[in-house]
Amino acid sequence: MEATSLVNQLAESARTASRTLIAASAAERSTAVNQIAEELVAGTERILRANALDIERAKSSGMQSSMVDRLLLTADRIQGMADGARQISQLPDPLNRILHERTLANGLKLKQVSVPFGVVGMVYEARPNVTVDAAVILLKSGNAALLRGSSSASASNAVLVEIMRESLSRGPISPDVIQLVPSQDRSTVGALLHARGKVDLVIPRGSAELIRRVVDDSSVPTIETGAGVCHVYVDEFADLDKALPIVMNSKTHRPSVCNAAETLLVHSAVAEKFLPIALKALIDAGVKIHADSETKEIAKRSAQNVDLASEEDWSTEYNALEMNVAVVPSLIFAADHIQKYGTQHTEAIVTENMERAHQFIALSDCAAVMVNASTRFTDGEQMGFGAEIGISNQKLHARGPMGLEQMTTTTWIVWGTGQIR
Amino acid sequence: MEATSLVNQLAESARTASRTLIAASAAERSTAVNQIAEELVAGTERILRANALDIERAKSSGMQSSMVDRLLLTADRIQGMADGARQISQLPDPLNRILHERTLANGLKLKQVSVPFGVVGMVYEARPNVTVDAAVILLKSGNAALLRGSSSASASNAVLVEIMRESLSRGPISPDVIQLVPSQDRSTVGALLHARGKVDLVIPRGSAELIRRVVDDSSVPTIETGAGVCHVYVDEFADLDKALPIVMNSKTHRPSVCNAAETLLVHSAVAEKFLPIALKALIDAGVKIHADSETKEIAKRSAQNVDLASEEDWSTEYNALEMNVAVVPSLIFAADHIQKYGTQHTEAIVTENMERAHQFIALSDCAAVMVNASTRFTDGEQMGFGAEIGISNQKLHARGPMGLEQMTTTTWIVWGTGQIR
Repeated sequence: MEATSLVNQLAESARTASRTLIAASAAERSTAVNQIAEELVAGTERILRANALDIERAKSSGMQSSMVDRLLLTADRIQGMADGARQISQLPDPLNRILHERTLANGLKLKQVSVPFGVVGMVYEARPNVTVDAAVILLKSGNAALLRGSSSASASNAVLVEIMRESLSRGPISPDVIQLVPSQDRSTVGALLHARGKVDLVIPRGSAELIRRVVDDSSVPTIETGAGVCHVYVDEFADLDKALPIVMNSKTHRPSVCNAAETLLVHSAVAEKFLPIALKALIDAGVKIHADSETKEIAKRSAQNVDLASEEDWSTEYNALEMNVAVVPSLIFAADHIQKYGTQHTEAIVTENMERAHQFIALSDCAAVMVNASTRFTDGEQMGFGAEIGISNQKLHARGPMGLEQMTTTTWIVWGTGQIR
Repeated sequence: MEATSLVNQLAESARTASRTLIAASAAERSTAVNQIAEELVAGTERILRANALDIERAKSSGMQSSMVDRLLLTADRIQGMADGARQISQLPDPLNRILHERTLANGLKLKQVSVPFGVVGMVYEARPNVTVDAAVILLKSGNAALLRGSSSASASNAVLVEIMRESLSRGPISPDVIQLVPSQDRSTVGALLHARGKVDLVIPRGSAELIRRVVDDSSVPTIETGAGVCHVYVDEFADLDKALPIVMNSKTHRPSVCNAAETLLVHSAVAEKFLPIALKALIDAGVKIHADSETKEIAKRSAQNVDLASEEDWSTEYNALEMNVAVVPSLIFAADHIQKYGTQHTEAIVTENMERAHQFIALSDCAAVMVNASTRFTDGEQMGFGAEIGISNQKLHARGPMGLEQMTTTTWIVWGTGQIR
């Protein structure tokens, strides 16, 4: 109950403050983002002092060192956040884009334009840089931000928000458009997820469990991000010299992220030739293989020993150096497998046959489909449209990397001179 | 449990059949819709016989005559459904639109294109024409349809779906892309709302209770439609000769629909002049007034007797000849009132001052904002983009009337020549 009234109060204050965002020009929003970048760098020591408290607490509570590293800020990492903010400030304004425009026979002039959502909640884990990334993307797109980070980063997040709010207080936009939701107890997450009417949208970013909880529990609209059981399908007409680096890069370049591949599907016509090479390369790179029986047979013949995959494996996002491998008799079988076990994130085909590529595109039903390229390219920066607030793998509203444009909704504006029906 | 397996089976069959939709060309989809229009007209007698059963059952169960009328089909109404379908068949293809296109420095070619959702569920009430409207909009936009209508229209809906499926069976698209979900018991609605992963989207259409239930219960993504507490704000700089017909049309033209106005807000500077005229016109038209105290005072001085509005009245969608009326000291007060009590559907301002109009547009936060026009123009056909499957008043994905384009999602297609990161 206390969490509910606290979150409602923050949301109301953010809503009122968001009117200063609506009143601000595109240049004023960009300047505010730039100013935040400057002040973050100027505040480096203050941020590092706060971060040291979080790190100390994490270590003494026995947190895994890889998790501690995600929590750690350095002067370089702060510089990186500031650079990200500067980049966002320079992107085209996502507001007031005219999406449709027409004049009707009765003289009414219609325009559909992009407008902010209003108040957007972020629920995220560990890494304090999300605090800055999310705040500046939302600021630039005209939205007020309610930031609910991890309690393990509470000291760092508090100082980052303080600095951003101080920076805003020197300009025309109210500092209340950036609000930190206390993370001391879990009930503030629930309160945020049920602030329907007060919060327009909640975006979860973090582990599969976190995302699941947010999407299942929320009565506020959410955008599902992240889960990625991505596949690489090596077609019968693949150039195998392209296939090998694509498989290796998709799996091993950064196994912990959502656009890493979890499963390799190989057409039976090239399996005998491709799999011994691919399995060797994967195993040499430290990848644990979960194979179907046909793959296990082929592996045995080339003196490689691999485990059989369980039914559960095919839908597991390992986020680690592990990969499922199966032989499929056709592209249709590959598409069926992907439909059954995939998460509609990123699917790749390696083929030199354009017809096959188009067939795969039509059947793969995902946010991004790669033809002869690594699954790792599903990424806002790689795709050339700047920082992202997350990668959506739902079909409503936004699909794939979400940047500034995806943080807007639309309004129809109808200009009349007294028309009635 | 039986409902669940039945709905899952229908959904799976629809999913498999949807591949014939993906394979079909735009011309084939349009032809299929046109063919359905022909066969509906040819099937008029068969449809009327089935409809007579529903009507008889409705009457003998004591259904209100206005509800019976919504259920009734006539040769003219069947012709109307067919005309609607023909109109849809002629609209531009919503699929394969290129929304973004770029070539990256590394040679990757990116295209964002529109694609169907896949399998879309409709949950709706009474009127059997929704069965045809929804099916042909979904067919034309490449989606398979699971149609769950009202049990009171079950005989009519069964024959309409039968005729549409027979029509499809003579062409390249599988008839299984149109599925009727049995309406004999309520559990099939629940089953549809929980077929997550099998159904991509559920759209409710009907009463506020129905929509609320669907949006609250569903684990499948939904688009909220319908609820409309719309306002007309008569500004201090209004042309009162325009204001009167706009108020009257917004309230009385068709009070039962979502884009009818429920509340009139009048700037205090013109209240003394405008309200006596407006109240008289409304009362003469049979409108019951729920007034704030200032309006009641003004009414009293012009010898009109009106009731005081309760707090609840301000957020009530009457769907009838009743209207709330309040005097506001400023545009900001009007915007605050709308934010507090409105449903983000349609808001109208009457003003000759462009600055005021822009201020109202910026603050009204709704699907459609009318400047000097009736709220009744928030409508797919009126806005010139054809039939609609509903009017969204949520901010995610679609806002306002939803036609063919809104029944699509997107995919990023990335063409490479072996690129890795």
